[in-house]
Amino acid sequence: MGKNFLYGQSGGPTSVINASFYGTIKKAYEIGSGKVYGMINGIEGFLKGKEMDMQDFYKSGEYELLKNTPASYLGTCRFKLPNDINDPVFEEIFKRFEKLDIGYVFYNGGNDSMDTTDKLSRYAAKIGSDIKVIGIPKTIDNDLILTDHTPGFGSAAKFVASTIREVVLDTRVYDKSAVTVVEIMGRHAGWLAASAVLARKYSEDNPSLIYVPEVVFSYEKFESDIAKKLEKSKAVVVALSEGVAFADGRLICEDETTQVDSFGHKSLSGSGQILCDFINKRFNIKPRQIEFSLIQRAAAKNASLTDVNEAILAGECAVEAAVKGETAKMVAFKRVSDSPYKMECTLVPAADVCNYEKNIPLEWIDATNSDIKDEYIKYATPLIEGEPELKYENGLPVFAYRK
Amino acid sequence: MGKNFLYGQSGGPTSVINASFYGTIKKAYEIGSGKVYGMINGIEGFLKGKEMDMQDFYKSGEYELLKNTPASYLGTCRFKLPNDINDPVFEEIFKRFEKLDIGYVFYNGGNDSMDTTDKLSRYAAKIGSDIKVIGIPKTIDNDLILTDHTPGFGSAAKFVASTIREVVLDTRVYDKSAVTVVEIMGRHAGWLAASAVLARKYSEDNPSLIYVPEVVFSYEKFESDIAKKLEKSKAVVVALSEGVAFADGRLICEDETTQVDSFGHKSLSGSGQILCDFINKRFNIKPRQIEFSLIQRAAAKNASLTDVNEAILAGECAVEAAVKGETAKMVAFKRVSDSPYKMECTLVPAADVCNYEKNIPLEWIDATNSDIKDEYIKYATPLIEGEPELKYENGLPVFAYRK
Repeated sequence: MGKNFLYGQSGGPTSVINASFYGTIKKAYEIGSGKVYGMINGIEGFLKGKEMDMQDFYKSGEYELLKNTPASYLGTCRFKLPNDINDPVFEEIFKRFEKLDIGYVFYNGGNDSMDTTDKLSRYAAKIGSDIKVIGIPKTIDNDLILTDHTPGFGSAAKFVASTIREVVLDTRVYDKSAVTVVEIMGRHAGWLAASAVLARKYSEDNPSLIYVPEVVFSYEKFESDIAKKLEKSKAVVVALSEGVAFADGRLICEDETTQVDSFGHKSLSGSGQILCDFINKRFNIKPRQIEFSLIQRAAAKNASLTDVNEAILAGECAVEAAVKGETAKMVAFKRVSDSPYKMECTLVPAADVCNYEKNIPLEWIDATNSDIKDEYIKYATPLIEGEPELKYENGLPVFAYRK
Repeated sequence: MGKNFLYGQSGGPTSVINASFYGTIKKAYEIGSGKVYGMINGIEGFLKGKEMDMQDFYKSGEYELLKNTPASYLGTCRFKLPNDINDPVFEEIFKRFEKLDIGYVFYNGGNDSMDTTDKLSRYAAKIGSDIKVIGIPKTIDNDLILTDHTPGFGSAAKFVASTIREVVLDTRVYDKSAVTVVEIMGRHAGWLAASAVLARKYSEDNPSLIYVPEVVFSYEKFESDIAKKLEKSKAVVVALSEGVAFADGRLICEDETTQVDSFGHKSLSGSGQILCDFINKRFNIKPRQIEFSLIQRAAAKNASLTDVNEAILAGECAVEAAVKGETAKMVAFKRVSDSPYKMECTLVPAADVCNYEKNIPLEWIDATNSDIKDEYIKYATPLIEGEPELKYENGLPVFAYRK
């Protein structure tokens, strides 16, 4: 018997993290002879003794559903390993690895998961363990360095662009002025919010204003932007990244004028609502705010087939790399060409990824600071191509889920 | 030359109102020999002299895109004609009809549109005009009487059920308690919110609580419902109709504890946010609210093929009826059988529809008052069947739109 495989999911889910799990399972059973385990709730759950042998799931064919199942099938966690690899928790983890006869560990997530990948590899090196540890990237935020893009981003971008295109049509049906603010995820990077630009059908189309965290926000500029757009068009749609901040670094949602409820609690409303309150006060318009919330990271029908296939590939590449003896690496994507779009998998040191955040190049942001340039469109368009084929039953998609 | 056709859209848009427009255009050119006009922004825009000859749009084939284009292609309005048909506005409208040589008028909308249909027909009768006026139903709320259901409902229900199924998977990924409240449209009827029940994969699955306006809401009952569900499951997902009200008739969003902003303005937040604030106060949990907002009525990819086809049929039936000499009628759907699902078009007097609202039968609501019974599932399932085939370009759906 060969050594066993262990795979875990960490951080916020995406529409395609399970596709990477699918690729990992498939490749591990194909080229390995060991068992395949899944950590339940990531390394945190694993430390509590929770894992799952994937054999029945694989043999029954149910694992095929993972390709189009959003969220984290195995459950996830937000758990940072101690910085000191002499901490006893590492010994504990490796005892569990040994007990399950693990030879290969795969950790699927963003920044923090690459930190975990790096620390586990360093501990393995320290104790002379043969265990290989490979990170598989995942984040709708697209903020990992050393990779052209991350699995999960393309599908979220496709949801954002498609849905804004639909919303734009809806916001112009009445013969009166209307401002709509759409709040989009992405943390401190504007990659996802910028995908709103793909929704435009012609150059003057909505969304006519796009605000990303890469540039500083001010109410004065915002007021003048809105006023200018309202002169040209009755319906104005604004795409707003949740991470947009003022010059002093405060996020819009940390603004002092944030509404409070009658108990004095700070409202849970986000930046979009705050900007709507501002528009309501300054213009004679009742604006509408739309928050894509977690729909944008879970929308299976809006997933990009390119993204699904690349997420599967990332899982497969991770297994191949580990079996070849690679460790302490993250699978990364290298773009070979834009048109026709061609991408290949590479490996980069996990340690080089984990403490950085990748932002949109400033030269891809329009001089007005409220629009995105063609360079971004060229970059992002191939990533949202293609429609996955879901399985349906009674009119609804069928997903894999743990009972 | 035969008489000309005139079609208008009114009220809030849906994913399939343009499919009814498609059916109307197609049938009118097929069986008539006159021109086909579209009112811009409904009867209100028409009164201002705004209409559009559809010939180029038809001949170019672009009208085919209407089948899957959300929102109201022609623009819409909220405009109630005077109750007194002796009001000079009727003379004005009919003068415009005469000028354009209109023989057939189609008005596509909900309750108020049937009111318009009725009044225009009565005025025609009064002045001895030959003009035929037919109403085409449309509303995601599904609250029109004398029809089994309304075009637009099936697609919105499919979006709600699909998206809640995705959200449910996402809300259970962390190993901690989580309450999520999803706010759903539907005005004073619970049809659309009830479609959340279709998302369940097994009987104890989320959404485990569904609140519709047909039953009275109280915080005491809600608190106890949440507490009971949290005992059984860490993740609790609540589907909440925007029209849910207290015993005294106040909507939740009109609750006195509604949060105010720092200027003392009542927040725009809806019922979902108010219930989240309540949960936050009573349980040691930070809840999440998701508002489907206008995405639920514009989601082309989540449209139901059954709904699209029935919306087209409604437009076609309206033209056939008018040409046969019918007037003052609304196209209605009669269900012939549930399994296999079979429906046929009928006509009902528009006057009988316009002043009523159809609610979910109380016997379809569970005795707990926070769940929906199998009778509803049997009713709604056929309406969400089938996936429309959209046209894509650069990864995004292509829609018809007026420049």
